[in-house]
Amino acid sequence: MILEAVLDELSEEGYGGLAIESIARRAGVGKATIYRHWADKIALIADAFKLLQAQRDPDVTTGSPREKLERVLRHVADVVADSPFSACLPALIEGAERDRAVRRFHHHFQAEARKPTIALIAAGIATGDFPPRIDPEVAAFALLGAIFFCRLMTNAPFAQARVPTLIDTVIGPRAALAAGPAG
Amino acid sequence: MILEAVLDELSEEGYGGLAIESIARRAGVGKATIYRHWADKIALIADAFKLLQAQRDPDVTTGSPREKLERVLRHVADVVADSPFSACLPALIEGAERDRAVRRFHHHFQAEARKPTIALIAAGIATGDFPPRIDPEVAAFALLGAIFFCRLMTNAPFAQARVPTLIDTVIGPRAALAAGPAG
Repeated sequence: MILEAVLDELSEEGYGGLAIESIARRAGVGKATIYRHWADKIALIADAFKLLQAQRDPDVTTGSPREKLERVLRHVADVVADSPFSACLPALIEGAERDRAVRRFHHHFQAEARKPTIALIAAGIATGDFPPRIDPEVAAFALLGAIFFCRLMTNAPFAQARVPTLIDTVIGPRAALAAGPAG
Repeated sequence: MILEAVLDELSEEGYGGLAIESIARRAGVGKATIYRHWADKIALIADAFKLLQAQRDPDVTTGSPREKLERVLRHVADVVADSPFSACLPALIEGAERDRAVRRFHHHFQAEARKPTIALIAAGIATGDFPPRIDPEVAAFALLGAIFFCRLMTNAPFAQARVPTLIDTVIGPRAALAAGPAG
């Protein structure tokens, strides 16, 4: 409940307006309770985001590399379009610009979050499912970047339904992948 | 000088902290001078960004589609890595979240800014220089998205030197493009 209050406050007030007192009031607890468990605002934000992250990991144990990638990206598109994470994202980006601790947390959290996507792309290249022209990290920047770009720089989130087109564009069309290089 | 003061204030104070009084002080003019020419903060920001935009358009009249695209993306990588625009970007994103007028300006400005990139990709597909699997708008989201993603979500800007790899990944390698589909 405290961590949910953190996300609500962050999305409504921005990082600059985030206050332990308001979080405590919203969660219906005393400030002392919060200070007993978290050293500062950053520790609270970190735990709130870790909770979100744990709730949102899609299954990538079954399916072809392309199916796994599509599942991950549909999930990212969903979360980035509309979720507590999405609501907090502009505040987090702005906070990272002004506060070194926020910046360190934001960049570390995001680096961890994109590791499975990069690994998925590298595995697809290794098995020959994805073309060798692709740099796994740069492809992850392009795929995730398209989704975040639409959230932050355009008036419409990246629609889940466009994820197959995104993969066709960056990685290659499904038919060509299935048929292999000779197809 | 007034418009430069707007960009300096915006990058240092954020959208929430932007005040006509501070802009006037920084530019060494009276507040009345600013109000005579601009109706509000948004009109000031819009003119400041238009000025930046006019200064930064790269030449795309010569070269192959790939050369033109590389020139544009190197320029975007440069501007997004380190410029008054880059310094203001987090404040603008956060401002867009809270203020409808900022949002409308930000999205309109960005939509105009990416039109030449989309047109360049569409032209490359039309001439057969770029593969037909590509959706021009989605490819622009992926290419620009990778650059903006690194600025906003990672601890290092997208290096200009990685632009060829970005194009190889999203569009296809130079050699394959030069040789055509049969190569």
